[in-house]
Amino acid sequence: MLRYLTSGESHGKCMLTIVDGMPAGLVIDRAKIDAELSRRMQGYGRGKRMKLEADKVDILSGLRKSKTIGSPIAIMVKNIDHSIDRLPAVLEPRPGHADLTGILKHDLKDVRDVLERASARDTVARVAAGALAKILLGEFGIKIISHVTTIGTVEAETKGVEFSQIAMKAEKSPVRCADLAAAALMIKEIDKARSEGDTLGGIFKVLIKGVPPGLGSYAQWDRRIDGILAKAIMSIQAIKGVSFGMGFDVGSGRGSAVHDEIFYERTKGFFRKTNNAGGIEGGMTNGEEIVIQAVMKPISTLKKPLSTIGIRTKKRILASVERSDVCAVPAAAVIGEAVSAIEIANAMLEKFGGDSILEMRRNYKGYIEQVRKF
Amino acid sequence: MLRYLTSGESHGKCMLTIVDGMPAGLVIDRAKIDAELSRRMQGYGRGKRMKLEADKVDILSGLRKSKTIGSPIAIMVKNIDHSIDRLPAVLEPRPGHADLTGILKHDLKDVRDVLERASARDTVARVAAGALAKILLGEFGIKIISHVTTIGTVEAETKGVEFSQIAMKAEKSPVRCADLAAAALMIKEIDKARSEGDTLGGIFKVLIKGVPPGLGSYAQWDRRIDGILAKAIMSIQAIKGVSFGMGFDVGSGRGSAVHDEIFYERTKGFFRKTNNAGGIEGGMTNGEEIVIQAVMKPISTLKKPLSTIGIRTKKRILASVERSDVCAVPAAAVIGEAVSAIEIANAMLEKFGGDSILEMRRNYKGYIEQVRKF
Amino acid sequence: MLRYLTSGESHGKCMLTIVDGMPAGLVIDRAKIDAELSRRMQGYGRGKRMKLEADKVDILSGLRKSKTIGSPIAIMVKNIDHSIDRLPAVLEPRPGHADLTGILKHDLKDVRDVLERASARDTVARVAAGALAKILLGEFGIKIISHVTTIGTVEAETKGVEFSQIAMKAEKSPVRCADLAAAALMIKEIDKARSEGDTLGGIFKVLIKGVPPGLGSYAQWDRRIDGILAKAIMSIQAIKGVSFGMGFDVGSGRGSAVHDEIFYERTKGFFRKTNNAGGIEGGMTNGEEIVIQAVMKPISTLKKPLSTIGIRTKKRILASVERSDVCAVPAAAVIGEAVSAIEIANAMLEKFGGDSILEMRRNYKGYIEQVRKF
Amino acid sequence: MLRYLTSGESHGKCMLTIVDGMPAGLVIDRAKIDAELSRRMQGYGRGKRMKLEADKVDILSGLRKSKTIGSPIAIMVKNIDHSIDRLPAVLEPRPGHADLTGILKHDLKDVRDVLERASARDTVARVAAGALAKILLGEFGIKIISHVTTIGTVEAETKGVEFSQIAMKAEKSPVRCADLAAAALMIKEIDKARSEGDTLGGIFKVLIKGVPPGLGSYAQWDRRIDGILAKAIMSIQAIKGVSFGMGFDVGSGRGSAVHDEIFYERTKGFFRKTNNAGGIEGGMTNGEEIVIQAVMKPISTLKKPLSTIGIRTKKRILASVERSDVCAVPAAAVIGEAVSAIEIANAMLEKFGGDSILEMRRNYKGYIEQVRKF
Repeated sequence: MLRYLTSGESHGKCMLTIVDGMPAGLVIDRAKIDAELSRRMQGYGRGKRMKLEADKVDILSGLRKSKTIGSPIAIMVKNIDHSIDRLPAVLEPRPGHADLTGILKHDLKDVRDVLERASARDTVARVAAGALAKILLGEFGIKIISHVTTIGTVEAETKGVEFSQIAMKAEKSPVRCADLAAAALMIKEIDKARSEGDTLGGIFKVLIKGVPPGLGSYAQWDRRIDGILAKAIMSIQAIKGVSFGMGFDVGSGRGSAVHDEIFYERTKGFFRKTNNAGGIEGGMTNGEEIVIQAVMKPISTLKKPLSTIGIRTKKRILASVERSDVCAVPAAAVIGEAVSAIEIANAMLEKFGGDSILEMRRNYKGYIEQVRKF
Repeated sequence: MLRYLTSGESHGKCMLTIVDGMPAGLVIDRAKIDAELSRRMQGYGRGKRMKLEADKVDILSGLRKSKTIGSPIAIMVKNIDHSIDRLPAVLEPRPGHADLTGILKHDLKDVRDVLERASARDTVARVAAGALAKILLGEFGIKIISHVTTIGTVEAETKGVEFSQIAMKAEKSPVRCADLAAAALMIKEIDKARSEGDTLGGIFKVLIKGVPPGLGSYAQWDRRIDGILAKAIMSIQAIKGVSFGMGFDVGSGRGSAVHDEIFYERTKGFFRKTNNAGGIEGGMTNGEEIVIQAVMKPISTLKKPLSTIGIRTKKRILASVERSDVCAVPAAAVIGEAVSAIEIANAMLEKFGGDSILEMRRNYKGYIEQVRKF
Repeated sequence: MLRYLTSGESHGKCMLTIVDGMPAGLVIDRAKIDAELSRRMQGYGRGKRMKLEADKVDILSGLRKSKTIGSPIAIMVKNIDHSIDRLPAVLEPRPGHADLTGILKHDLKDVRDVLERASARDTVARVAAGALAKILLGEFGIKIISHVTTIGTVEAETKGVEFSQIAMKAEKSPVRCADLAAAALMIKEIDKARSEGDTLGGIFKVLIKGVPPGLGSYAQWDRRIDGILAKAIMSIQAIKGVSFGMGFDVGSGRGSAVHDEIFYERTKGFFRKTNNAGGIEGGMTNGEEIVIQAVMKPISTLKKPLSTIGIRTKKRILASVERSDVCAVPAAAVIGEAVSAIEIANAMLEKFGGDSILEMRRNYKGYIEQVRKF
Repeated sequence: MLRYLTSGESHGKCMLTIVDGMPAGLVIDRAKIDAELSRRMQGYGRGKRMKLEADKVDILSGLRKSKTIGSPIAIMVKNIDHSIDRLPAVLEPRPGHADLTGILKHDLKDVRDVLERASARDTVARVAAGALAKILLGEFGIKIISHVTTIGTVEAETKGVEFSQIAMKAEKSPVRCADLAAAALMIKEIDKARSEGDTLGGIFKVLIKGVPPGLGSYAQWDRRIDGILAKAIMSIQAIKGVSFGMGFDVGSGRGSAVHDEIFYERTKGFFRKTNNAGGIEGGMTNGEEIVIQAVMKPISTLKKPLSTIGIRTKKRILASVERSDVCAVPAAAVIGEAVSAIEIANAMLEKFGGDSILEMRRNYKGYIEQVRKF
């Protein structure tokens, strides 16, 4: 079982995660984790803050001579601006944030006590944990990528573009968009929103290739891999929707057009020619590419702030302005990869055991052969 | 903590759930649970099977003189057609179902071993558990309703319609749709699909009113109420997407237009005039109506079956045909209510404790007063 | 993952369990489960009640043609005396029971609301679940037995007696004691206590043979197999202590005398000649026989009742008398086997995966070979 | 819900814990946590290592201006000797440790990869987490103390000594023993064992005063507070047995002598004059003092090492000698307090909710009054 807790406030000492359950014998290249953190920081539309943070991980435990040993792995990313105790009180809760409910729930008198933890800065820890999961999945040839398909009103067109092409193009794009023309328009839309003191949201996809059939289960509701992935994605800050395969469009299709017929070739085994299901049927991975979409609302902190109520005065006032971004969909996509990686890795460990990478690989191979010979 | 397991196969003896964690002192009217099961069975577009099932619950444990006593509650619904051991083998896995992956995963040689459990018949147990949760929530004035907003290509228009109006209209509609004109078109679309041996999906909404602010938490990713609800909904058979508030449309809005400004009146406390967030901000309920959308794919079992591969012969063949429905979106909406009710009830118990309804109510009132006086 | 919930009141309709996570492909002989229930009912010192109950299981779900299919398995045992709603109120809480705290906790006005669920009758469900676990463990040559080592002041002497001898002798003994002379004295002690309206407790051991090394983990506190087993055993009604290997005597030994030196033979691999650790070191099974002791307090319901306080009158009164046993240590031993079996089965599934018995066996064999070749 | 993970190796950078679920509004005095760590380090019989470590906590997250804010709290304790990557391989697994099984389980070739995490050094993190729990419990007047009752063959006599006397005497004693005469003999026994290159174990008690009735539950096996506490205690390194109240002696008592009769006084409510149950009946706290005993085996690392097998050579050899202690029972007692505190705090949060200390206190008071007025 792979599980993790995170902690840390955005102006506290650091962001932190403890990841419990990684198998022994895996080489962990710290640069790979830093690279994921760097991918998370990028994206046209991020604010000044992003430049302040040059996040580097400090692996506090769980490795010996750069190898996992079966111990829990703790990863720390220091915050450069450690000012939480000195920062002034915030008394104007921002619409769209945890601010107001957070103080009501916890009986707090300063919104800062809430926003410091509710901040998407916490995703640093989730991305670090996800980077570990990706390294594990890499041992089994499982690849996880993401790309942005809409920002504001601009939609990308990527039908028919291959996984590897999408990966390459998105990685090069300042808005993580695999459609160059759309990317240019997205940048314009971001510039316009910024100049107007406004913010943008959008939609991204996470694609996962190389997953064996049979992760997750239909046997009990809480073991369904789509439910598990949906929880992981929906729990990313500002995400308001998640879907698989055709997503919400599946509702308007006919059964005869939507379901992916089954084919077989001796060398390949069972396979599909279409993937409307997005790689998941019956709460299980079916061996095809997993396709996840998620929608992110526009950033809730506006330079031209919304109207709110002062928590002491109970009078109308403009909401507090923390330094912030115009658009963070490209970053959210990277975070989406990370949290998906963790859940897939957990499902792999559940299915194949995982005290050592040797054992896990042996069990995995046995199963793959079993499926092939079915 | 409220937790539950279900069991049962669609042609086994019964469908079953054990619900652990209900507070003591709650009157359970069995007729209310039966009524929820009856709501689940209805909906234009269901097949003959639905007529066979006149589901009635048998409460096996957890009550004394019709009251909860703090014990786990077991609910059984008998299957009329208990033929699982006699039914013939199924060798043609249906696209869109758990069939193929299920046998590969579990090393089974008969698809029936899979489809019996993967069947949406299991939602009988979840609806029964949800009915208990609804009774508990009713003590706190929390109401959960649902309505169908699209079937196939027909979309309903319900902007501006009040909660109680939607409840009433949807309840009367054979397709659980609160827009009468659209409902008529939906029925036509279902008739057309049936005559063509095809199936339909669609979109439904679950609305929850009267939820206090502060259920869920931003403090740890897995405690976010939106993630928790998303998992519960996505784990319903055939659901491929879930969203809150504006749903996927939120991605194209501007921050200034999307976020719900905060207002205050002495008698009401803090409130909003808009509800684009769908009642959830920062992973917590904010006290406004919770609005969930979910998309259901068209039923995977087609009268005019899709092409597949025989699992013994490895040759192309038509998929197996189990008796089935043309469209089950209205039923899915009712199931959506049930699973949401369970998660909200659990969040209530987590926040307010729950050894007795007396204690839970006292703690709830104390908090509501605390929030009002904030 | 193997998990289970139980439900049921002692005079309710039935005792019930849902066991989630059993691998597919396992033949379940119902007679084996009935046999375990029968073992649980036996033991010199049980009251009349035991004769009333001829517990037979009804498997409600999870099997097809007597084989597991990966579905959750529900097992029901009907109560012959289903009178819970008609039985009179109990107003005199019995010392040693959940009675008093149960009503305070749950705001109940009738002790019967508590004692119906708190009753050890619930262990019927745990024994049924344990019987499934034993069948699974049997596939791997793992055997679980138990014997009673003390009842009241009578201690058995079984030093040097082999596992199979203990199993055979205990099984034949009316007090599940492998020392014939002690067994005779135990029976006398029980007779004496009965004639005096009093009750007895005692100590039993659970022995588990054939467990591979490496179940459990030192990596995180809550994954230690000794902690997990201790929780399972301590949660049996009336158990007040649990220990491994030398038990509490280990505290007075010297390190040089207590620890089990390590040996090696090419054919056997690593092994020990002593087993003071009781098969567990560092929170993991070490491949030697697991030895668990547990102490059971004397039955709390006395024919010659203790003094208590009437919950309405608040006056001193004699405690309520439910029909009961003089001594139930032999039964507790059987229950100890069951709950241990479940935890070991869960640890096996965690280590070896378990979607099918084919897969689990393959993974198990691979690991055993890996250990042998180390 | 209070939950925590720990990480860290004994010669790694640090020991770490993330504690999730502490209510907001609690003042955390870091000195109190340091004081608990200091208590853990003390005790006659500890080796040189203890002098090297002057453990001080670094609170990495979860506080603002020394107050909890509802965020997870991360606590780090640095290791002075951070040499894990440079330390030589260990090839001689020590009997009584995780050493041998650890390398077999994880496919490791160096015992050091195991012993670094399996080390009781991890209890630093558990004691830090426990210190937080103690601060929370202190708000409700709940006190947790411990004392050593046997070391080797020396037994203390503390019958009739009051809670506060035991606390005071144990705290002053170099062996945490409340019986001065016995303490002197224990010190002698330790000196003797040290001079002979041997080690000692013993028994300690944890006492918890001020716990309200009704924590835990009889309703489901895994919610019993005795099972939960037993798991927490048994998962401390080197603990081989745990019991409540009379412990294993309860097995030889008669029911009439063992159970604690119930009394009532208007001002006190229900109470007992005896406490053989150790404060737990029916899987719940009954409001009396919780009394836990645990036995610790002698330290497994001996100066005069045991015989073992070289993992490369497969030849007999003396076990590896890490610097170590002669006796650590006093330290284990402090750790026992910590892990018990965490579980009691979790049970309090479960019963009373816990988003803020204000709310938790209000709910607690409401319940206490409910119980008093019963």
